Amino acid sequence: MNNSELPKYFKFDKDEIWFEEFEVEKKTMKITYKLNKILSYCTSKYQEIALIDTNAFGPCLVLDGIMQSTTKDGFIYNEMITHIPMLTHKKPKRALVIGGGDCGAVRELSKYRELDSIDMVELDEVVTRECIKFLPEISGGENFDSRVNFKFGDGVEYVKNVSQKYDVISIDSPDPESYAKDLFGEEFYRNVKKSLNDDGVMVCQSESPMLHMDIINNTREILKDNFNIVRTYVAFVPSYPGGLWSFTIASDVYDPLNLDQNRLPDTTRYITREIAKSCFNLPNFINNLK
Amino acid sequence: MNNSELPKYFKFDKDEIWFEEFEVEKKTMKITYKLNKILSYCTSKYQEIALIDTNAFGPCLVLDGIMQSTTKDGFIYNEMITHIPMLTHKKPKRALVIGGGDCGAVRELSKYRELDSIDMVELDEVVTRECIKFLPEISGGENFDSRVNFKFGDGVEYVKNVSQKYDVISIDSPDPESYAKDLFGEEFYRNVKKSLNDDGVMVCQSESPMLHMDIINNTREILKDNFNIVRTYVAFVPSYPGGLWSFTIASDVYDPLNLDQNRLPDTTRYITREIAKSCFNLPNFINNLK
Repeated sequence: MNNSELPKYFKFDKDEIWFEEFEVEKKTMKITYKLNKILSYCTSKYQEIALIDTNAFGPCLVLDGIMQSTTKDGFIYNEMITHIPMLTHKKPKRALVIGGGDCGAVRELSKYRELDSIDMVELDEVVTRECIKFLPEISGGENFDSRVNFKFGDGVEYVKNVSQKYDVISIDSPDPESYAKDLFGEEFYRNVKKSLNDDGVMVCQSESPMLHMDIINNTREILKDNFNIVRTYVAFVPSYPGGLWSFTIASDVYDPLNLDQNRLPDTTRYITREIAKSCFNLPNFINNLK
Repeated sequence: MNNSELPKYFKFDKDEIWFEEFEVEKKTMKITYKLNKILSYCTSKYQEIALIDTNAFGPCLVLDGIMQSTTKDGFIYNEMITHIPMLTHKKPKRALVIGGGDCGAVRELSKYRELDSIDMVELDEVVTRECIKFLPEISGGENFDSRVNFKFGDGVEYVKNVSQKYDVISIDSPDPESYAKDLFGEEFYRNVKKSLNDDGVMVCQSESPMLHMDIINNTREILKDNFNIVRTYVAFVPSYPGGLWSFTIASDVYDPLNLDQNRLPDTTRYITREIAKSCFNLPNFINNLK
């Protein structure tokens, strides 16, 4: 492909290639990465998909010009969105990931022997195919655990109609732009609840407390209408604008503050038994959550 | 001043002004901020000093093109570099800040009634003057606590010669570039130790674990040669490249893991009693510290 046919977030400057990401919505800051190479670029039915090899963060997935997963820090997000709900539920057998096209979340779930099945409903099969090929350090490449089932399609539709129920559901969505907006809506969360067993646990990424307290508060309000227990926890994700990232977890039965950190697999790179507990200690400026 | 006389890290694009910061040393990524206004720009004997009003982080201090303090997240760094050593020492009476020209650290120290004196040795008086004028939310403006003493000069020289000893010393240095290099060296830390009472506590910022594990390990090695107890803790600083920031604290007597969180002032915005403890829970990927 000719450079001039590539989107404008790729900048060519003499011998250098840079990828320039705008902070979503407000366009008040941008992070720019020097690239070793554009590994691949294509458009699917849903979006522009780029795999880029950055100097600072290694190979990365970019969707519609927004950084999604980097090899250097992607494990932080993927660990936090899977291990916290898995340790919160006492006996999880069936897990579902909605989104999570980079396969990092299902890879973390595969570390739990007690799971019988791990389903992943990703809208865009092309994203998964590209990540298997170009992001093996996150996706694990082609060798998937035999319990993993890919179900490509719309997660919003999936939870409307699914018959068999889950113990743990992780909602690994992109920012609430365009096609992902419904993944932050009321109807979706009601259907997620219906897709859980009575003692099920769900978690979603709820954006940056530095930049989007509105999204955190909105997500918490919807979840509180549907679940007895709702808690927000945080982790560092250096490659996301705002650095500090939030996740919101909900259940009718299990309180995440009592999670069993001793079941944490010993192959994690970010989360420790201590962090599994202390990630719920929120900074004062976000302690006044609704 | 004419725009063309300003340094190249200011970009003028139609009606817009942007400030472009390179990640130090490696130049593999940059963060760019849209500006409302350049509040002031001058050169002192030591450096280029810019005060800029950013859309995303409010008014900020920039030295030689590197972001130092932002109004939106500067409190995180300033709280972490003062409250942890203050709670670690059992009866601090005299505190010293080396660097800290934005006055945020001495402002946090002022919250402790038990302190008799708070000294600040900043190399560049112009930085402090500009921050008092343009960053009142960090510096507190002109109304300083009467215990605060400004001693403008070289911190490296100061600890060589000072006669009265301190209980707590916070080393609030910029990145280890040019004139700040000595603030990361062996001789400096030996003199810091000499400037402390026998049960004194010192802390320094030790850069980002995502980008500079070498600096963290080097700092820890030097401190371990000089102190019985050396510990590293972390905080989020969204506006610094790498997001996750580290601090290393040392004492011959007090173990920071036993700090007294109940003495924490109730006016902090980031640190809570829980975070004062859990900031020592390091992610797995930095648990193999030297």
